[in-house]
Amino acid sequence: MRYLTFGEIMLRLKAPGVERFFQSPVLEATFGGGEANVAVSLANYGCDVSYITVLPDNPIADACIAELRRFGVCTRLIKRGPGRMGIYFLEGGANQLPSKVVYDRAYSAIAMAKPGDINWDEAMDGIDWFHITGITPAISEGAMALSLESVKTAKSKGITVSCDLNFRKNLWKYGKSAPEVMTEIAKYVDVAIANEEDVQKSLGINIDVDVESGKLDTDKYRILSDEVLKAYPNMKMIAITLRESKSADINGWAACLNDREKFYISRRYEINDIIDRVGGGDAFAGGLIYGLTHYDDKQKALEFAVAASCLKHSIPGDFNRVTLKDVENLAKGDASGRVQR
Amino acid sequence: MRYLTFGEIMLRLKAPGVERFFQSPVLEATFGGGEANVAVSLANYGCDVSYITVLPDNPIADACIAELRRFGVCTRLIKRGPGRMGIYFLEGGANQLPSKVVYDRAYSAIAMAKPGDINWDEAMDGIDWFHITGITPAISEGAMALSLESVKTAKSKGITVSCDLNFRKNLWKYGKSAPEVMTEIAKYVDVAIANEEDVQKSLGINIDVDVESGKLDTDKYRILSDEVLKAYPNMKMIAITLRESKSADINGWAACLNDREKFYISRRYEINDIIDRVGGGDAFAGGLIYGLTHYDDKQKALEFAVAASCLKHSIPGDFNRVTLKDVENLAKGDASGRVQR
Amino acid sequence: MRYLTFGEIMLRLKAPGVERFFQSPVLEATFGGGEANVAVSLANYGCDVSYITVLPDNPIADACIAELRRFGVCTRLIKRGPGRMGIYFLEGGANQLPSKVVYDRAYSAIAMAKPGDINWDEAMDGIDWFHITGITPAISEGAMALSLESVKTAKSKGITVSCDLNFRKNLWKYGKSAPEVMTEIAKYVDVAIANEEDVQKSLGINIDVDVESGKLDTDKYRILSDEVLKAYPNMKMIAITLRESKSADINGWAACLNDREKFYISRRYEINDIIDRVGGGDAFAGGLIYGLTHYDDKQKALEFAVAASCLKHSIPGDFNRVTLKDVENLAKGDASGRVQR
Amino acid sequence: MRYLTFGEIMLRLKAPGVERFFQSPVLEATFGGGEANVAVSLANYGCDVSYITVLPDNPIADACIAELRRFGVCTRLIKRGPGRMGIYFLEGGANQLPSKVVYDRAYSAIAMAKPGDINWDEAMDGIDWFHITGITPAISEGAMALSLESVKTAKSKGITVSCDLNFRKNLWKYGKSAPEVMTEIAKYVDVAIANEEDVQKSLGINIDVDVESGKLDTDKYRILSDEVLKAYPNMKMIAITLRESKSADINGWAACLNDREKFYISRRYEINDIIDRVGGGDAFAGGLIYGLTHYDDKQKALEFAVAASCLKHSIPGDFNRVTLKDVENLAKGDASGRVQR
Amino acid sequence: MRYLTFGEIMLRLKAPGVERFFQSPVLEATFGGGEANVAVSLANYGCDVSYITVLPDNPIADACIAELRRFGVCTRLIKRGPGRMGIYFLEGGANQLPSKVVYDRAYSAIAMAKPGDINWDEAMDGIDWFHITGITPAISEGAMALSLESVKTAKSKGITVSCDLNFRKNLWKYGKSAPEVMTEIAKYVDVAIANEEDVQKSLGINIDVDVESGKLDTDKYRILSDEVLKAYPNMKMIAITLRESKSADINGWAACLNDREKFYISRRYEINDIIDRVGGGDAFAGGLIYGLTHYDDKQKALEFAVAASCLKHSIPGDFNRVTLKDVENLAKGDASGRVQR
Amino acid sequence: MRYLTFGEIMLRLKAPGVERFFQSPVLEATFGGGEANVAVSLANYGCDVSYITVLPDNPIADACIAELRRFGVCTRLIKRGPGRMGIYFLEGGANQLPSKVVYDRAYSAIAMAKPGDINWDEAMDGIDWFHITGITPAISEGAMALSLESVKTAKSKGITVSCDLNFRKNLWKYGKSAPEVMTEIAKYVDVAIANEEDVQKSLGINIDVDVESGKLDTDKYRILSDEVLKAYPNMKMIAITLRESKSADINGWAACLNDREKFYISRRYEINDIIDRVGGGDAFAGGLIYGLTHYDDKQKALEFAVAASCLKHSIPGDFNRVTLKDVENLAKGDASGRVQR
Repeated sequence: MRYLTFGEIMLRLKAPGVERFFQSPVLEATFGGGEANVAVSLANYGCDVSYITVLPDNPIADACIAELRRFGVCTRLIKRGPGRMGIYFLEGGANQLPSKVVYDRAYSAIAMAKPGDINWDEAMDGIDWFHITGITPAISEGAMALSLESVKTAKSKGITVSCDLNFRKNLWKYGKSAPEVMTEIAKYVDVAIANEEDVQKSLGINIDVDVESGKLDTDKYRILSDEVLKAYPNMKMIAITLRESKSADINGWAACLNDREKFYISRRYEINDIIDRVGGGDAFAGGLIYGLTHYDDKQKALEFAVAASCLKHSIPGDFNRVTLKDVENLAKGDASGRVQR
Repeated sequence: MRYLTFGEIMLRLKAPGVERFFQSPVLEATFGGGEANVAVSLANYGCDVSYITVLPDNPIADACIAELRRFGVCTRLIKRGPGRMGIYFLEGGANQLPSKVVYDRAYSAIAMAKPGDINWDEAMDGIDWFHITGITPAISEGAMALSLESVKTAKSKGITVSCDLNFRKNLWKYGKSAPEVMTEIAKYVDVAIANEEDVQKSLGINIDVDVESGKLDTDKYRILSDEVLKAYPNMKMIAITLRESKSADINGWAACLNDREKFYISRRYEINDIIDRVGGGDAFAGGLIYGLTHYDDKQKALEFAVAASCLKHSIPGDFNRVTLKDVENLAKGDASGRVQR
Repeated sequence: MRYLTFGEIMLRLKAPGVERFFQSPVLEATFGGGEANVAVSLANYGCDVSYITVLPDNPIADACIAELRRFGVCTRLIKRGPGRMGIYFLEGGANQLPSKVVYDRAYSAIAMAKPGDINWDEAMDGIDWFHITGITPAISEGAMALSLESVKTAKSKGITVSCDLNFRKNLWKYGKSAPEVMTEIAKYVDVAIANEEDVQKSLGINIDVDVESGKLDTDKYRILSDEVLKAYPNMKMIAITLRESKSADINGWAACLNDREKFYISRRYEINDIIDRVGGGDAFAGGLIYGLTHYDDKQKALEFAVAASCLKHSIPGDFNRVTLKDVENLAKGDASGRVQR
Repeated sequence: MRYLTFGEIMLRLKAPGVERFFQSPVLEATFGGGEANVAVSLANYGCDVSYITVLPDNPIADACIAELRRFGVCTRLIKRGPGRMGIYFLEGGANQLPSKVVYDRAYSAIAMAKPGDINWDEAMDGIDWFHITGITPAISEGAMALSLESVKTAKSKGITVSCDLNFRKNLWKYGKSAPEVMTEIAKYVDVAIANEEDVQKSLGINIDVDVESGKLDTDKYRILSDEVLKAYPNMKMIAITLRESKSADINGWAACLNDREKFYISRRYEINDIIDRVGGGDAFAGGLIYGLTHYDDKQKALEFAVAASCLKHSIPGDFNRVTLKDVENLAKGDASGRVQR
Repeated sequence: MRYLTFGEIMLRLKAPGVERFFQSPVLEATFGGGEANVAVSLANYGCDVSYITVLPDNPIADACIAELRRFGVCTRLIKRGPGRMGIYFLEGGANQLPSKVVYDRAYSAIAMAKPGDINWDEAMDGIDWFHITGITPAISEGAMALSLESVKTAKSKGITVSCDLNFRKNLWKYGKSAPEVMTEIAKYVDVAIANEEDVQKSLGINIDVDVESGKLDTDKYRILSDEVLKAYPNMKMIAITLRESKSADINGWAACLNDREKFYISRRYEINDIIDRVGGGDAFAGGLIYGLTHYDDKQKALEFAVAASCLKHSIPGDFNRVTLKDVENLAKGDASGRVQR
Repeated sequence: MRYLTFGEIMLRLKAPGVERFFQSPVLEATFGGGEANVAVSLANYGCDVSYITVLPDNPIADACIAELRRFGVCTRLIKRGPGRMGIYFLEGGANQLPSKVVYDRAYSAIAMAKPGDINWDEAMDGIDWFHITGITPAISEGAMALSLESVKTAKSKGITVSCDLNFRKNLWKYGKSAPEVMTEIAKYVDVAIANEEDVQKSLGINIDVDVESGKLDTDKYRILSDEVLKAYPNMKMIAITLRESKSADINGWAACLNDREKFYISRRYEINDIIDRVGGGDAFAGGLIYGLTHYDDKQKALEFAVAASCLKHSIPGDFNRVTLKDVENLAKGDASGRVQR
């Protein structure tokens, strides 16, 4: 089984620990981005996964590629092109204080890439599963075109396509709205992943649940997922993540999956001391792709995905630095946090 | 609108992170002190604020002044004089372990200052609001005399005077007790700020609520504030902060305000993962001064103050490094802590 | 009153803060081990305590000895011998992610020590209380023999012997099982300390309580302790610690003590933001030994021990860096975590 | 005397200490840029100095402005506009390994600014000295136009104009070459500052000295400076810095000044353990401007400038964190480095 | 061209910066070992290189392998086996204070490996160049046997064999002396690398030059290398590194190469501010292997090797984190250390 | 052989690494002071040494005492009294930039101690060697009186007294000048230690050598020491340290000793990359006391002292963290700085 993910990876510059920006003259410097995060998850579980993007040809991008290689992600397909390395600045939050992202990703190499810059036919040779998100088409006209090329090629080669809708309100600045593009991309998607807001803002499908509030109503998610599957007959299934945001530290976390035959609901986790929320959704996507390709039982696949993303909240950085065994243990039900020795 | 605050600013030396003193051979070195903290809050909200104190003429005091300037606080009135820079050592706490303050502030420049060392008439030229606390008069005979001079001058110039009673049991060592002095100062105060213990220990006004325990009884605070206002006919209003200390990490936080016409009670926040409690009261004072001078509605002013101080608990250091927008968002009710991107 | 503890001390190499191993190229480097941790606790409370072990003759072991001396533990009895300094690697956990210990303690100097390498008669000269744990006899044939020698000598000299049963499933690799050895050692023990799993795995005494689950049932512990005391007529008392592991951050913590006359149950603490769990049991043992030798009242001794170990959860590192006063304050009931200034 | 400097300030992201990029997942994060560095120098010497630039409206730029304010630089003239905050990545060098700069400054707010975006007439109101460098006109067509506007306005208002020619071969990408622009700007300059390469690459004036080699030949610099002054009759004087680069740690450092009347040569410093070379030239410019406006004696002014920039090599970061007294002491000849206590 | 190196890689635990052991409770934690260092060098220059060793199956060894992968070294041949991960502790030196290595490498997985544990025939499939050092056979009887197996297999498959003699006086504890083993291994070596002490202590070939003293005498090295080549007729060439140790910071560095036809002497570098000397010899070996397989000119190959190892002295850690271009620039003669921007 | 030293120990707060004060919000926090530094040196060499001082009763002083205990210094004689813990702030220098000390030691416990506060008779029971410096009598009237008491008691008990004259121009503020006091103390001194400036400023004995300049003239030191010995007939010998301060990084270092019979001159060390100069003189004193009490040969004693203090320049912090073997190796002549493994 070979996997490929495509999207933007950025330099992530975070104020250290619980500090505000420039409280100390230091930034924690790592790398991350939705699709790269998914690739790292799959590599961590022992999968053969490649990641493709466009990066500039400089030492910062070299370090980024080396970091991906460290996790065992194959980086041979990565292209170098004009433009910058995208950056995002991050300030952690706590209690009632939200964490903040400041994007500096304009003019990145992937944003400046043009249709045809990637030979998708070659890149997808031997690939079984292709993953993309709703972030890449939001970056620029060119990245959108590349995204469309990618899913079309994948489809034509019989590759399973998963897509995390991932709506980002501060992107989509090149003249197209999210629904204009995402409704087109969705036609090529086998496995959709989303939260409720994504469904609404990317696909324009609404049912009235207040995103800001907390308590879940699983019936609504069943209805919502049914509507998406009705709108996209090609789509084999959709998974919806259910986050209850009580504070920057305390979240409830669960997910559901609708595969047209059955509506699965996962165990719900209470996370009381969130270390880093960023990448939680990507950890879910990575876990779900792993689960769907390694378990026959969709409930098990969903539980693996939710456990994986639950653990991500305890790990600093975008990447979900867990082992297969860590996730399996939690998915099996051991959430006691006892010291392992 | 121009503001002035007066008091002592100290070098704050904290054991790093969650460590005990000298567990590592390093101390986090910042600056802080009640009245300076209030000035920084006001500057952060975009106000034109000056801070006055007496500091020695050495590179440590220079750095302190530079740090205040960084936040936009006007430091031109600061005087240099004989004596040291006050220091306080701080060890963070967690759970049942309290954080600890070790004072090394004896013989500071402000403690050694004498009446007449500050030309209050000049310093207060053009000032609309003057803020002081009960800490300065607790330091030394001289600082007490300067404090008295300051409020009298302010009064004579028609400047609004606010005072955070701030009782500190380990000060008041120069021969006067807190009530002897504070009952005199209180006569010049328009806006008093206090917690219940401050009222009791500084003004000698008691009603029987156990400071150490938790659950609030708002009626008591109405009565208590009424008594203070009765005792000080000049006082236009008093705000009382209501902290429920469940552990070093978990506090309930709210406040009330009595303006002789109405008794306002704020929303109550549960803070579950306190980052730094020191300066929480000063953040309230800063927020209240801002609120009272920017909102017509006293409930809104109080909510702003409580939101501001609630956020302070999530920020390391004495200074409340929040933006006006951060506070407004929380005061409006968004406490979900969702990532802002 | 002079105390002696005997066992292995290791170099403790922890991933910094909340990071996974090698997320940064740095390890927090301290020292720790069950019996040394107990010695440090006693020294912190002002007791005259010695620690005996076998260490290699190199700068890392020198630093370890210096660190013990720093706390006031007498290190003059420590022997140097062939073999390594044992190491354990530690990764902190959070929420549902457990912390992990990776042992690298094989071939340590104490593991390679042989019966007769320590002159117990001399070492115990003037000693009133001797403490050992179930870890040392688990290390190697030689360490087991030395452990047996030690308790026999102590007994013969009328020294009170305490033993923390401390079952470690990844040790016991030299050919003997835990019960084979520990049932023999237990014959010389005056004060046994254990959790339920220890009793079961070390002494083979079971009653059916699920170790992984949470809610306590104090009756069971009364019965369990009665059975141990019945099996070991020499044993004067047994204390059992009661941990409810809700997550890596949140634990309930309490203990009980059975002295054949009465069954004491301590106050129960809810610890919501665990800083470091490792050494929590040792802090209990240290507190209990102090309590039993300084209070006539066993309830008070038990409360002291539970308060001490409760505080340990808020302190990074193996050693319980608290003062006598810190523990006394909590044992007396002040768990509010208010800033002390 | 009021000073104004204009140019780009960047976020400076440096690999920590002597490490290569991403050897640790951390970057030292400060700010710097030629003209801002000059402003900080002047502020450090107690001068009334303003800095003008265009920055985006985000928290990173806010922190940059706060940092300038910290040093006492007036930041009120700084404009906010579309575009990014420029960044440069820096890796320190040692011995034969050069330090490396990776620019990420394309599309910065100042690069995207247009002629007319700054009201130079207002900005220069009350200013006596205006400083610019050859970096700003190298950034973009717009920045070049703003630079030209600035020197013309200054000239028309009788303000003294200084310009550090500062040739940067990796800029000048918008279609104009350095000499095309700089020969025009030079017509408005009263005080030129340069090293030999700058003169050659910016003004196209050559004499044959090998830039890479070491040993100085002062006659050549006399001739070179004479030629520049001949070419620009408006120019009152030119200072040339003389760096002998023996290794990344060891440099000789001196300068000369030609004021048409006399050719001054400074003392020469051997710097054997360079801490940070970046900003050394700016420290010279700042020192020279201070010297020329505070000393009647040009030799003294030059010695002050060389001493100031010599000291910069011992200070990490772009800014020359020295006091007036530090520079005066060295300029007077105390280079012994004895502990001051 | 495919390369393979074989040997032990250790966890390297260094006191931070210039500190002594445990001056701070932290150790810099990286990985290194002679043959792995050579593999990293080759990977950095863009070569296709594999590294083979035996490591335990635990998270520390996993991190070690990930780190090698980061540099692009192929780690697929690495075997897991019983035993520990070898460790070495390092304290940096300065001036007259030498840096110190404390080995904790006994009982490592490679030390406990047995002949036959590695299938050399498979491992060397497709390999053109095999590199080994004199450290591996010094570790244990088993590692020695594996080393002999490796060079014999390489020889039989027509693979070029290079060997860095690398004498370590604190190893060789299993019953064989260095010359007993190394004279046998040398028979299979095509390219020998050594310093004078190595030749003497490993091969027993002496000429009288004092290792501790400084000034070089190139004639001696010509004679010495001639003698080695005479003793080992199979050997095609020998390179000898020439270090002049003036202090922990200041070393002269050069090398010579004798290929039976000609005696080449490299440029000599003065390194005045050594950052990290460990791995300097390995950087030479890596550079020489690269040079000999990429340049026809042996002088150029030697200059590349010396430049590479010269640069290593400016880089912290065992690995030579330079690029091909860095080395080429220095080999071409630019040692000025000017900032590259 | 038992040693005792008496003086002030301070909290030492240093800007990290090469940074200026508050460039980062952190201070390196250790402890140091002339006489404590000497005690640590002696303890490091294995001597039985006590240190006596007066400290406040707070957690900072507790940590200071623990740190001394870590090195094996006996701290039982240390008294607690009113007053502060003295502090000194330190900024490292480099090249032409001197390091700077900012004292905050006024009102320290030892400064506020009174004659009679220490029972010298008891403290000196069993002591063979007593060491003091010229710093203690410079602090305050009381500290001066205690110093005089101490040397008189020592003399009366036949204890050898050593004194490092150590002139500090920023102390001596209580009304007495250095010569007024030091000429009295010198009468009780057996072994005097000084540099030329100390002799001149403390004892008022001059010969014309320029302290600021470099090149040594050993004849002058012979004459100078002869004059001191002539003035103090009780004095058995005087050692004079000879520092050539070329820059903050580069110093020459040597010493001479005059024992009335012979004038010894030590080897001279060139130190090119000074890590920390503070405590260099104390390291000499500690080394000399060790040497004089362990070697019959005074040349050897002097070489030991100079080697010890030479090494101190390579060690951060006040304390000379070297082993006996480190010093012996250098004293024997190995200054090559080769890696020890």
